[in-house]
Amino acid sequence: MLSKNEIKYIQSLKAKKQRHEAGVFIAEGPKIIEELIRQHAASVIKVFGLLSFFKEIPSSVLSKINHVVISEAELERISMLQAPQQCLALVHLKEQAFEPFVAGSWSLMLDSIQDPGNLGTIIRIADWFGIEHIYASADTADCFNPKVVQATMGSLFRVKMMYGPCEQWLQTHQPACYITAMQGKSIWETDAISPGVIIIGNEGKGVSAALAAHATGSMSIPKLGGAESLNAAVATGIILSHVLQP
Amino acid sequence: MLSKNEIKYIQSLKAKKQRHEAGVFIAEGPKIIEELIRQHAASVIKVFGLLSFFKEIPSSVLSKINHVVISEAELERISMLQAPQQCLALVHLKEQAFEPFVAGSWSLMLDSIQDPGNLGTIIRIADWFGIEHIYASADTADCFNPKVVQATMGSLFRVKMMYGPCEQWLQTHQPACYITAMQGKSIWETDAISPGVIIIGNEGKGVSAALAAHATGSMSIPKLGGAESLNAAVATGIILSHVLQP
Repeated sequence: MLSKNEIKYIQSLKAKKQRHEAGVFIAEGPKIIEELIRQHAASVIKVFGLLSFFKEIPSSVLSKINHVVISEAELERISMLQAPQQCLALVHLKEQAFEPFVAGSWSLMLDSIQDPGNLGTIIRIADWFGIEHIYASADTADCFNPKVVQATMGSLFRVKMMYGPCEQWLQTHQPACYITAMQGKSIWETDAISPGVIIIGNEGKGVSAALAAHATGSMSIPKLGGAESLNAAVATGIILSHVLQP
Repeated sequence: MLSKNEIKYIQSLKAKKQRHEAGVFIAEGPKIIEELIRQHAASVIKVFGLLSFFKEIPSSVLSKINHVVISEAELERISMLQAPQQCLALVHLKEQAFEPFVAGSWSLMLDSIQDPGNLGTIIRIADWFGIEHIYASADTADCFNPKVVQATMGSLFRVKMMYGPCEQWLQTHQPACYITAMQGKSIWETDAISPGVIIIGNEGKGVSAALAAHATGSMSIPKLGGAESLNAAVATGIILSHVLQP
């Protein structure tokens, strides 16, 4: 059974300010929650789920986590999803500050990515390609937004998502740093490109002038047809696949 | 001024059945509508817009289209968007049946893609890379769904989106035909691959066995990290970029 206060508290975590003040975010769905309790049990505060969900989890795993059986009606009240998916977890939110540049590796820098779906998809792409660090401007969408958590499909727990002062960081570390631009070097010809940071610009405005000023190179995805642009996450996937190609 | 019947009619076009029976779909937003009236004026039935929108359009263009000034309140009533964008157009919906395979070119085949955002993004990617034909199973999301139209950013009018019997078509035309599979040939090594049809599977279930049986080859996107899968649209973009690389 959920108390009124508990329901109110969970619902309040829809708001970024509340999540960060409480240091708690919400993850939903069996796939992501099973991964959480098996691999990151220490970050799980509490799991709310239907009896049918818990029945599938070995008791040796269940015994280690704080969990409570709720009804479908209760799940509907606390879920942020249009179609609630059996379970919901409260998870410790760890703010991660910018870390130094790791020379010899590829990283992403997100310059004000606004769409939660795009952000989640970019985190999932980074995880697929083994990119460990994502540096994001403070005005990039919050990776603990329930829509982002959902879209990452668990990758949020494997990629280090850091928010901070991008321009200052580029100034301090001076990494090899790439932007995409129509006149940039074709990604089909990036044979001997040194690893560095790829800056992904805002969906409408692209990379800001302040960050673009630090670019040491620019790349372009060859355009053979009529579309004016590519979705930010799609472009990220294409660029990563080409720069990582041995 | 909009009549009650007009509002009701436009709202009814939210439903696939209504759209296809009426042969009419909705496009929204200045970008897509300006492109429509400049380049595809014959398919535009009527444009509803705020005075501020029409003021930006040269009268020589405006004189050729059926248009009506509406208020913000009226726009809100007919718009399918959470944040209506100045204008909305009714457009002729042309059903396109499967065409024969075009030897020597790359095409896409969509096997039950369900998410409207994914479908719109795939159409936009196809347009970017100059892919002219998309064959889709009858149970793929409707490309005239307002969310898809929105996500294509105008590409819907440049790419031929056809719905029909995929399996029968593959049987008849026997094109080179590729699926993605974990054990497929890495797209980083697809040097001398013959152009053909790339089948993009359903978001959850992948490519159906019936279509996979017609594959003449399989490809994989190298996975270097932990994510279990890539978003269908992202995978489409990555694969196309590599197979088109000269």
